[in-house]
Amino acid sequence: MPKIVDHEAKRSDIAQAVEDIIYDEGILSLTMKDVARLLGCSPSVISHYFSNKLDMLIYTHKRVRRRAEQTLLEGLGAGQDAAACFEAILPTRAAQWRDWHMCFAFWGLAANATYVQKEWTEASSVAHQIFQDIIRHAQALHAIDPALDPVRLATEVQVIVNGIATLVTQSRAEWPRERQVDVFRSMFRRVVAAGG
Amino acid sequence: MPKIVDHEAKRSDIAQAVEDIIYDEGILSLTMKDVARLLGCSPSVISHYFSNKLDMLIYTHKRVRRRAEQTLLEGLGAGQDAAACFEAILPTRAAQWRDWHMCFAFWGLAANATYVQKEWTEASSVAHQIFQDIIRHAQALHAIDPALDPVRLATEVQVIVNGIATLVTQSRAEWPRERQVDVFRSMFRRVVAAGG
Repeated sequence: MPKIVDHEAKRSDIAQAVEDIIYDEGILSLTMKDVARLLGCSPSVISHYFSNKLDMLIYTHKRVRRRAEQTLLEGLGAGQDAAACFEAILPTRAAQWRDWHMCFAFWGLAANATYVQKEWTEASSVAHQIFQDIIRHAQALHAIDPALDPVRLATEVQVIVNGIATLVTQSRAEWPRERQVDVFRSMFRRVVAAGG
Repeated sequence: MPKIVDHEAKRSDIAQAVEDIIYDEGILSLTMKDVARLLGCSPSVISHYFSNKLDMLIYTHKRVRRRAEQTLLEGLGAGQDAAACFEAILPTRAAQWRDWHMCFAFWGLAANATYVQKEWTEASSVAHQIFQDIIRHAQALHAIDPALDPVRLATEVQVIVNGIATLVTQSRAEWPRERQVDVFRSMFRRVVAAGG
């Protein structure tokens, strides 16, 4: 395997271990040593790939949120309607509970920690752009009124998706997929019906 | 000061130190030792009041969310309209950024850690109950259509408030108070106008 691919593959393995520890044991328990133990290597190997814990967390968060970005783009590419594209990232399955949980853990880091603020801003603006693209596409098809402001709609849909995720994360048993989709659909319908 | 008051006052001082550390340095940097140093006491004093870090965090989260609960109830008691009651807990000021940040940090803890799940459930159900009370009061005054389901409305308003907070926490500079209130008001108006 070429060296650069190997390097990225290893960083990805480490990020997977970080995700597992954060979900199963919590961010408080995250140490470079535990990550090394989970991967069966020495802590010095981990520090070869990440200079510190924060660096490792930022990489892990990027990897997690890119999965959601990918899911949105795939829905758009497959010609799904806007609501279906957004619903695909709701925390309706165990894998997505984990991804959202990682996001909350990451949002709870210190704003002034180097690069954390940068990754927050990047994450929310990339998501906002993709939300906009999905809405603009639906507007081009007249599935959503083209007179509405897609930037404003994208923000409101982000509010709905993230807001549902905050409630689900705290009470998963009370939020089966059907309930999430039902609340999402009814709120989404009103956002695209009325505009700002 | 009676002993029990003194005990609670001390726990509250410790929780304040925990909040400060989590906001300024992040939850990754939180140790019982740092809390002790910030309060100018020995770590053994801290462990007299809290048996471990998680216990300390749960207490701190309770204290933070009770401030928001109190704000909501004060608005209701003062006869403010429903929208104004809810707006009062949006992260429009530094003190509220801190409180919301503490909530995200807490939501990022491990679900299977003892008592974390219990506090999540309690926090979201107490908030839900207060949101319902505010809506029912507005319905009694016919400011909100009494035919709408207050339980459903409370959930949707929680989605909006929490959703806005997730976006603000990641990009505070882009979310001055006016923008938060504007997005909240327009989404709230449509929730109470249309119902489920």
